Amino acid sequence: MKIANLAGRLALLTAAGDAALDAATASAGRFGPSPTTAFDSWPTFTAWAHISDMSGAKAFNTDDLGPVSPLPRQVFAVGLNYVDHTAEAGFTQPTQPMIFTKFPSCLHGPRGDIPLPAPASDISVDWEVELVVVIGVLADRVAPDDAWAHVAGLTVGQDLSERDLQMRGAPPQFSLAKSYPRFGPIGPHLTTLDEAGDPGDLTLTCTLNGEMVQNGNTRDMVFDVPALVAYLSSVCPLFPGDLIFTGTPPGVGMGRKPPRYLEPGDILESRIDTLGTMRHRCV
Amino acid sequence: MKIANLAGRLALLTAAGDAALDAATASAGRFGPSPTTAFDSWPTFTAWAHISDMSGAKAFNTDDLGPVSPLPRQVFAVGLNYVDHTAEAGFTQPTQPMIFTKFPSCLHGPRGDIPLPAPASDISVDWEVELVVVIGVLADRVAPDDAWAHVAGLTVGQDLSERDLQMRGAPPQFSLAKSYPRFGPIGPHLTTLDEAGDPGDLTLTCTLNGEMVQNGNTRDMVFDVPALVAYLSSVCPLFPGDLIFTGTPPGVGMGRKPPRYLEPGDILESRIDTLGTMRHRCV
Repeated sequence: MKIANLAGRLALLTAAGDAALDAATASAGRFGPSPTTAFDSWPTFTAWAHISDMSGAKAFNTDDLGPVSPLPRQVFAVGLNYVDHTAEAGFTQPTQPMIFTKFPSCLHGPRGDIPLPAPASDISVDWEVELVVVIGVLADRVAPDDAWAHVAGLTVGQDLSERDLQMRGAPPQFSLAKSYPRFGPIGPHLTTLDEAGDPGDLTLTCTLNGEMVQNGNTRDMVFDVPALVAYLSSVCPLFPGDLIFTGTPPGVGMGRKPPRYLEPGDILESRIDTLGTMRHRCV
Repeated sequence: MKIANLAGRLALLTAAGDAALDAATASAGRFGPSPTTAFDSWPTFTAWAHISDMSGAKAFNTDDLGPVSPLPRQVFAVGLNYVDHTAEAGFTQPTQPMIFTKFPSCLHGPRGDIPLPAPASDISVDWEVELVVVIGVLADRVAPDDAWAHVAGLTVGQDLSERDLQMRGAPPQFSLAKSYPRFGPIGPHLTTLDEAGDPGDLTLTCTLNGEMVQNGNTRDMVFDVPALVAYLSSVCPLFPGDLIFTGTPPGVGMGRKPPRYLEPGDILESRIDTLGTMRHRCV
């Protein structure tokens, strides 16, 4: 099952992902119009969605896709969760998950422009394709074996990062530099676990103007999704709609010699095979 | 004007703070019952609240007070914002505000028990009394001179911190260790700026079992409230109801020789003269 935010309304997508059924209309107001209503009652919503008649689904404009969880109570992000990325970033591999936030005002959908903070000559905005976990059922101190029961599904994310600000301070705190407007796009839609493939073997790619710059696999995560859900929920209850950006594989711009950063006009594509592709233009 | 969350309902308090008027009842449903409705339309709400007839205000049980903004979209916290605290914590004074988050699930009211993560012998939970800013009007790239127009009011906060987890990692990220359940109490209520005194000259105190452990003044902030609102809003739009924990003065437990941390049964009182007192028991 594929769930989307279509112009701010909750929608079910067909298996091919190219047609959408408005949830509020199809459920006679039981779910929707806000996408958050899916997470307010995820088990009930999915039970309804799985048996919905999709024959009324209509083609849609992908430019209208928004972030599937537009108002999460909490956004968690994991740093240094792939060994080869830790090395290229010049850090020591942490022995427990490194957790920061992307402030929710940075969330965005899977299409459109991403403004680079001006002036472009002074900034260093980098790409980080990531697997993003969407929580569906309250997770409070859950064991790794139980973690998947609390996950609504998966999507693709970009953890865009302004490196100058990110690395300032002693010790630097990563959150703010990763939270400029639209620095947290997710999409193109949420895919439930039955259609997502093996979450421990997903290929993540990022291309810049058609050139592949990241090509990783979730099997190389240091802490996998169940470990992350268990770890986070040992401290914070995770609420339906909460997001976990699970870390990026190697290939980011700051790891290159010389470093390479995003410039106006650059086209960034972020893809996980079973979850879809996001496409953004830097401006 | 004093605004409170009383058992999950928006309330106006009398000048003495000892009686409350239920906003939903007094406004015939225009505001409340949720405390968040104050922030959804802050200018309209305050215009109404300022001329409300308080003669129906009733005594209330302070144990029923909750966090005045229970569901903020964003919680910002500032580290190392008092020079003498930076020194006792063993850090270098940052040249720009150090920003992390307290994940919103840690918010709590001004009374009640604060659970210390078990087992107590292995943890190091520390106190940090702080001035907390509540946003009332969207702040998007505002200048310091305009910042106060975006502030709903002020309250007292505790930035409780588990030091072992906080300092782990290279570089350590502070957010998660400061986000255990109830590690972000605020209160006792929001005080609007007309009653808050000079925000640049507020005395903050924290007592532990009656012994004063922190006694600071906001005049010693490295970055004052207008500077923080301007800095944060240069990156992230700040939404009504968002919170800013503005940093703690010296006197925390980790700065002592030997360090001193909270233990079950400890009574923690956090006070700013013009804003009121919070009282919590560690369990």
